[in-house]
Amino acid sequence: MQTFTLDQASVIVDAALAHARELGCHPLTVAVLDAGGHLLALKREDGSGILRPQIAQAKAWGALGMGHGGRTLAERAASAPAFYAALTDISGGRIAPVPGGVLVRDAQGNVVGAVGISGDHPDKDEACAMRGIGRAGLQADVT
Amino acid sequence: MQTFTLDQASVIVDAALAHARELGCHPLTVAVLDAGGHLLALKREDGSGILRPQIAQAKAWGALGMGHGGRTLAERAASAPAFYAALTDISGGRIAPVPGGVLVRDAQGNVVGAVGISGDHPDKDEACAMRGIGRAGLQADVT
Amino acid sequence: MQTFTLDQASVIVDAALAHARELGCHPLTVAVLDAGGHLLALKREDGSGILRPQIAQAKAWGALGMGHGGRTLAERAASAPAFYAALTDISGGRIAPVPGGVLVRDAQGNVVGAVGISGDHPDKDEACAMRGIGRAGLQADVT
Amino acid sequence: MQTFTLDQASVIVDAALAHARELGCHPLTVAVLDAGGHLLALKREDGSGILRPQIAQAKAWGALGMGHGGRTLAERAASAPAFYAALTDISGGRIAPVPGGVLVRDAQGNVVGAVGISGDHPDKDEACAMRGIGRAGLQADVT
Repeated sequence: MQTFTLDQASVIVDAALAHARELGCHPLTVAVLDAGGHLLALKREDGSGILRPQIAQAKAWGALGMGHGGRTLAERAASAPAFYAALTDISGGRIAPVPGGVLVRDAQGNVVGAVGISGDHPDKDEACAMRGIGRAGLQADVT
Repeated sequence: MQTFTLDQASVIVDAALAHARELGCHPLTVAVLDAGGHLLALKREDGSGILRPQIAQAKAWGALGMGHGGRTLAERAASAPAFYAALTDISGGRIAPVPGGVLVRDAQGNVVGAVGISGDHPDKDEACAMRGIGRAGLQADVT
Repeated sequence: MQTFTLDQASVIVDAALAHARELGCHPLTVAVLDAGGHLLALKREDGSGILRPQIAQAKAWGALGMGHGGRTLAERAASAPAFYAALTDISGGRIAPVPGGVLVRDAQGNVVGAVGISGDHPDKDEACAMRGIGRAGLQADVT
Repeated sequence: MQTFTLDQASVIVDAALAHARELGCHPLTVAVLDAGGHLLALKREDGSGILRPQIAQAKAWGALGMGHGGRTLAERAASAPAFYAALTDISGGRIAPVPGGVLVRDAQGNVVGAVGISGDHPDKDEACAMRGIGRAGLQADVT
């Protein structure tokens, strides 16, 4: 019944950070949430800013809240700025419409959680999230 | 003197969702508020995102808060973005200026509540709200 | 994969309210949350107070947050008042440690959601929640 | 000058959870904060309640906030309940005055962070925190 375990979340975090070191990223924070938006695992690298845990969680939470990855949310925010400004308040500050929030799907395509990464350029954050999710044998969905 | 009952609100929710299925909408969340902005009934379809209950309520609450449907609020937000950005804070995150929030009026034209729907394109959300309100024998006001 | 559906949640709400009418309860509000604490369905009866939606949700959310029903949380709050006072803030006001918050388990014993009812004496609120859950073919856990 | 690293925090989390499995604890959540009260690492075991991440962080944050472990805070809250009720608001819900929040000191006695654990009896939570801190070669301070 448990479709997304701490073991899987831990693999995602560690594989994402290993990829960040290969890419020479700035210090990152990686958050993994379950389908209900609750934290399963988080690591903040030495030197990663003190707001990064909240940003990483907001990238992941926003993806779950809207059912789309941060890349799609960023596009929509650009075309509907007033609505997305409202969404930050509606959500209590739990949305960050920017790449680096990635939905996690199981083999049947069900959303089982989300990953949010913050600390470098959003494209690099996103690449590390995708690598981590792949290493755990799950499907990354950035759309 | 009770002008908007749970029975009516329940008809609205179920008729709106029935219409959504006819239209093949994405999974929706439907919220019905009384004239005081308090929840009477809500249903979230399987697969509708975890932020949808708050968005649906904010569409309805915003309509009541300003006395206009979400379609009008969206137009105004486009021409007065700073004011609407302020309104999201002023309201404590209870306003979503986007179509899909519809005022409910009785036969005498009094506002008795509002419906908010979220999950598909705002125009489709609004169409489902209007259908639901009509099925309950009440007047939908999107302006 | 979906272990707790809107159809089940709707049966719970309607069966709980039918039982409330049999018992002659005061007007109730019934909230059904999924395992992540997000609203699936809610109905507020005519005359049920305007804070009842929040109380009903807090009974259910608190049960999910702590992994125990409101009856157990009430006992613990009586013996650890400072901690439970802190928990109301820690949770952002999403906990109500009082009977009427009931965990919903599936046939395998997994928590799939929770029901919260507010409006009458907590024991009656709880009885209606249990009846509703039973009518949906699921297991009610008040402990 | 970095006195508390992600590597050390990761050792604490994993050693605390290993000890929890030896003791047969309920599913735990372990949070490790730096001296500024910001999250370094967190893991939530499968089945640990959805409020546990906040509680674990509040145990650790409260210890840093007051300069004493949760065991001392619990004693003080018992003798000064109104003040501790105020502190939950003053802190914005970031204090949990209960055992399981443990200060982390380096070899010179400086506070470099804190550990918070939630999910079982507070005494067991605290024992796991102490084990984790010891495994990382740091000093646990529960007073």
